Formats: sequence, C-alpha cells, structure tokens
Amino acid sequence: MLSQYHWSRAWRTASTCARQQSTAAASRARPKTIFSGIQPTGVPHLGNYLGALRQWVKLQDEAAPGDRIFYSVVDLHAITMPQSPHVLRQNTLETYASLLAVGLDPNRSVVFSQQDVLEHTQLMWILSCHASMGYLARMTQWKTKTGVSDDANPMETSASDKPALKLGLFSYPVLQAADILLYQTTHVPVGEDQQQHLEFARELANTMNHAYCRGPVSPESSWTGFPLPQTILSPAKRIMSLRDPTKKMSKSDPNPESRILITDSRQDIEKKIKHALTDSIQGISYDRALRPGVSNLIDIMYHMDESNFTSPDQIARDMFGANVTMKAMKEQVAKTIVDRLAPIRDRYLETMARPSEDVAQQMYRGAVEARTRARDTLDQLKTAMGLRGPNSPL
Amino acid sequence: MLSQYHWSRAWRTASTCARQQSTAAASRARPKTIFSGIQPTGVPHLGNYLGALRQWVKLQDEAAPGDRIFYSVVDLHAITMPQSPHVLRQNTLETYASLLAVGLDPNRSVVFSQQDVLEHTQLMWILSCHASMGYLARMTQWKTKTGVSDDANPMETSASDKPALKLGLFSYPVLQAADILLYQTTHVPVGEDQQQHLEFARELANTMNHAYCRGPVSPESSWTGFPLPQTILSPAKRIMSLRDPTKKMSKSDPNPESRILITDSRQDIEKKIKHALTDSIQGISYDRALRPGVSNLIDIMYHMDESNFTSPDQIARDMFGANVTMKAMKEQVAKTIVDRLAPIRDRYLETMARPSEDVAQQMYRGAVEARTRARDTLDQLKTAMGLRGPNSPL
Repeated sequence: MLSQYHWSRAWRTASTCARQQSTAAASRARPKTIFSGIQPTGVPHLGNYLGALRQWVKLQDEAAPGDRIFYSVVDLHAITMPQSPHVLRQNTLETYASLLAVGLDPNRSVVFSQQDVLEHTQLMWILSCHASMGYLARMTQWKTKTGVSDDANPMETSASDKPALKLGLFSYPVLQAADILLYQTTHVPVGEDQQQHLEFARELANTMNHAYCRGPVSPESSWTGFPLPQTILSPAKRIMSLRDPTKKMSKSDPNPESRILITDSRQDIEKKIKHALTDSIQGISYDRALRPGVSNLIDIMYHMDESNFTSPDQIARDMFGANVTMKAMKEQVAKTIVDRLAPIRDRYLETMARPSEDVAQQMYRGAVEARTRARDTLDQLKTAMGLRGPNSPL
Repeated sequence: MLSQYHWSRAWRTASTCARQQSTAAASRARPKTIFSGIQPTGVPHLGNYLGALRQWVKLQDEAAPGDRIFYSVVDLHAITMPQSPHVLRQNTLETYASLLAVGLDPNRSVVFSQQDVLEHTQLMWILSCHASMGYLARMTQWKTKTGVSDDANPMETSASDKPALKLGLFSYPVLQAADILLYQTTHVPVGEDQQQHLEFARELANTMNHAYCRGPVSPESSWTGFPLPQTILSPAKRIMSLRDPTKKMSKSDPNPESRILITDSRQDIEKKIKHALTDSIQGISYDRALRPGVSNLIDIMYHMDESNFTSPDQIARDMFGANVTMKAMKEQVAKTIVDRLAPIRDRYLETMARPSEDVAQQMYRGAVEARTRARDTLDQLKTAMGLRGPNSPL
C-alpha cells in the first residue's frame, strides 16, 4: 500500500508566529516545497500509479524554478509492521527503481530513502515531546492495522487475540509529521486515507510555532516557524481488482492476477486482462453498478490515455458499443496499457540491471541533498529550543 | 536531577543469538563498554557528585586498555519536560564543563551531547517498533513526572487537572534503551531509580536479538546481537538537604542554601555549612535518626575524604566528640569540602572562561567519536533487518 501524505483542508489556521505572519502575504509568491512518501512495497500496481505516482511526476514536470520536490521511500514507516529482511531490502530497491521508471528525475526531484536522513527521527523525537497521547489514541490507523475496534484502548490490545500494539505503530503519525515538516513543506500530494494524519501534522506545526516562534526563545534564534502545508489532492482513481471489481486493486490480494504491476510484460498484461472478471451481457457499455468488471477495464483504458479520450463513457460508446465482443474490447484495453507502460518497464529494467550498489549510491546522493534542507530546518528549530547554540559546529 | 542508567540484576537471561552464544564464554575477557547519561540541569550538587559522577571518574581511571567509555549529556531526554530555551542551553554548557571539572578526560572517555549523535533517535525508532505499549504503560516515571496515580491511563491524564501526557515522556524508556544499546554497552553505572528502565532495555535487547540474530535475516548480515548490559550500582550515598536533613539534597529545592554545588566558592560553602540545620544537643555524635543534621554533615565529610577515614562514626568519635562545639565541627566539615572541591572549581572556571563556541567544538569532537561506534551498531542492525544493503554507501 502506498503511504501518502494528505492534507485535505485549505490553509485554515493563521500562522501563530509573528515573524511568519509578517511574511505571510509574500508566501504565495514564494517557491513551493513539495514532499510525499511511498512505502517500500516493491513495484507499484496500476492503482498506485494512476492514483499517486503519476501526479508526483506531473508536479515535478510542472514545477517552477526555485520549487523544491522531495519524494521519500519511507522504509522507517514500513517497519511498523513485521517485515522479512530480504523482502524489505529487495522491495526498497524495486520501489526506488519504480520511482525513476515512472519519470521522477533525480536532477529535478530529490528521491531518497527515509532512513538515510537521520534527521527524520530526531525531529520526530522533538515533536513527540509536544504530541499528546490522547490525540494519538484517537487516530484510526493503529486500530485498522491491528484489527481492533474503534474504541479500543492502545494499552490493552494484547488482552485480545491480537498481538500487542507496538509504540512504533502508535507513533506513526508523529514520524509522518516530522517527514513533512523537516523540509519546510508547503504542499503535500496525498490520498484521502492520510487525511487524519495530515490534520495532526498541521496541529503539531502550530504547537511548535506557538511554543518557539514567540515567547522566551534564544536571542540568537532566527527560526521563522513551520509553514502549514497545503494539500494537493489528486482526484480519486477507482482502479478495482481484475478478479473482483467490487474491491480496490491491492498489493495484499493473494492473487497476482488481480492487479497489473507497472513493470508487467506484454504477455503478463494480455493474460491478466484476458482473465479479468467481466460479465456475459452482450456488447460493451459503461455502467459501474451493473457492469463493474467491464467498467473497470474501460476506466483503466481511459486513465492510461486521458489526453485521447473525453470520458470512460465516451470510450464505451464511440470505440466499442453493442457490436464489439468482450474479447475485442479486452485486446484493445491490453494494447493501451502495454503501449503506455512499455517505456516505464524499459526504464525499470535498465535500473534493475545495474549493480545494486550503484543504485544504492544514487539513492544515497538523494539523501545527501535531502539532508542539506533537513539539517537547516532542524538546526533552526534546535537553536530556537535552546538545544543548540547559534554557532554550533555540528 | 541526574538521569542515571541503572541495571540492577546480574546477567540473567542467556543470549538468544546463536552467534552471540558461541562467543558468550569469551565475553568476560572482552573489553568493557561503559555508558551512562546525565541530564543537562547545570552544575551538579554534592549528592550528584558523590552518588554518580565520582564513580564515573573512577571507572574511567580504572579502565583497562581497550575498554570504551561513553558519557552523554542527555539533552533529548531533558525536553520531555518543559524547558526554557536559554536556560537549557546554559545548563548544557555548565553540565558539560562540570563533567570535565570532576575529572572526565576527553582523551579517555567519550563525552558528548546526545542530540549531536543522530543515531540515538533512529535506533529509538527501530526499537519502538518492537516495544509494546502495555509494557510502557506499566513504567512509573511518566506517572511520577505528571503527578498521576499508579493506575492512571496514559490516554486520560488530560481529563484531570494535569497537562496532557506527551508521547515523548511516555517513550522515554525506549530512547534510554537506545542510548545504551547504541554503543554495544556491557556495563551501565546507574542509580536505583532507573532500575525499571534498565530492565526494559534488556528486554528490548533480547527481543531484537531474538528477531534478527536468528530467523530470516539478510544473508550478508554479520550482526552478532546486542550484549545484555550489566549494572554497576554505586553504594547509595544519602546526602541530605542542608536545610531539611530528612529530605535528599536536590536541585529542585527552591532554597539554594539546601545544597552545595561542586563549583561553589569557599565563601559559599562556609556560609551554607554554617547555616546548615543541626540541633542543640551538646557535643558531636553520629546518629542519623536522632541527629540527622549533624550526621549528614559528618557523612559529607566522610564521603569527601573516604581514604582518610574508616567511617562517619569514627570521625564523630575520634575527630570531634563530646567537647567539640557545633561551630568548630562545621568549620572542619567546610574546610574538608573546600579543599576537595577546589580543584574541581578551578577546572570548571577554566572551561567556562573559554569562548562557548570553543567548548561546543570540544563537545562536538566527542560526538564525532561516539558516532563511529553508533554507526557501526546501527549499520549492522539495519543490515540484519533488511533496511540497508551490506555495501550501502552511507
């Protein structure tokens, strides 16, 4: 599953920092900083790509000079759930290669592994000294992931048949807030499921700005506070399982034929689309309620090639219609997917053909670049908190 | 208050790591690694010095070649309670200068600020993904510090008149475990109040060794697991308040005459001892129950100059006795303290006379040295967990 960072509401709360307020008017003209993260679950499927990654690339390609873009493989978030070491390592490599494959360019976006930037967890610790346990207990993610009810007590999950809740999973939103705030992020492209966590990140930013941007701060402090990040919400793409079109396409489905990976071969794609569950109604028409399987295939075709079509409905009417067979439609859908994914697959295979040390080295160069910004933020905050002198050698 | 790291029980649980087991027999001959931490509360008082810091120096001076000693000013722990930025900064400097003053030698002990070694919080995050919330809820420190009852629910402290419990204070034992384990520590000099936290650190070490030293680890992993740290418990020195000898000498007492700081001037010491609360019984005798004030002064004299005396009782009998006045006894006690603290005070003033950037630079050199060991531990663990390839450039 993609871990996306999401901010649903518009810039809502006024900045609490005097210095920040004085420059608030100028902030709209200021360069953007975009941050988002993806969990290292290996090669993304079409749902991930159409829902999030394609938007990441678009944001990169449309960035103004001076904008900064940070995309992180959030491996430290991944270990909040049990991981097999060799699978985790391979998945990290594949996820990074996939990011390059979809079109992220290390010369325009800073693409890096979260664990390579040690500042993430130090900021997380600082934030956690300001984050209330009660607020965190109301978050839903730890409940979903451990399978307990909405009113569960985090201290008592081990009393049931579930494994004991770990501190890491409970603290997940604080690390995510640190990920975002560390880069002085102004914009976060995200999915709806992360809305609650981004609310939390913004609350924390406000708390920190309140505490350290006014009041008894170090006289040498030049910290201007955290910007409050705005959301960039991509229109939800409902890409459904090929084997059960009432469920979302998912990495966790045990049947690999339920999903198309963005690096699937022509043969794989043709086979999966051929086996996709549809119906026995004559001809092709678009109706998500009545014909979920057929409509899902048409949706995929539409989203893969949006510039060529007006709507899924238009595809169903103009390209297919009552006289086209399921087989013919599927062949056309498969062809569209194959054509669009071919360059992604090629770039992916190119990266994966390189020695893994070489790819790790490239990922590390991203981290070095990310650390420059991360250290700048952390140094300013630490100076404001009195943790660090203004001329500290570190 | 000193934050000491304490391990009360002897090496109790067998190592769970096959590779570690195979070398367990050799471990007694292996060089020691000693770690302990002190919170940046400024210049320590006599209780801190006699209870902990003097033992730190002794451990340094008696270390065998190959032993490694790490002493950290744990500023990241300090921010689990509200701090005034400029006070925190000044206290950090004074605490570091005090460590040098009592006799820690940067050429023999690695003395550094915790926040300068970013690896502490990354290991803390990794450990927190293996630390259960229920176990942490049973810890007492967060209850003591927030003033709630023993059976309080961490989620509901804000319902009372207390401020809401913050994640940082609740997670304190996990950062402390990371502090210790990060240096592959074998011995931890500590106070009794930290016993529960060290139990927890050892449990966590066992959990990590279980999870990553056997089972499906990366084939390239060479991690041999965390040593289980043994305690070095100093015999408790009951140094009591000079104004109320039924209470321990404490930094938090509002009356500065209740304590002697290790950098106090001759005049300060003489005045504080002169004003020390005693009794109106004729002559000098040692009896903690009947004469707590007098006995406390004799205890201090004894501990300040242990090599010259057999016991506090012997001092009372042989040096003082029934014919000595309170005034004369106090003058002798003050003289002993002044003589013993004079070189400490001189070294402290020397350090504080240097430009603060220069002292920060020296503290930073300690951090650079600490990071070498810290990175080694973290890299090995991360490779075992699959977070990092064996040839990662970082």
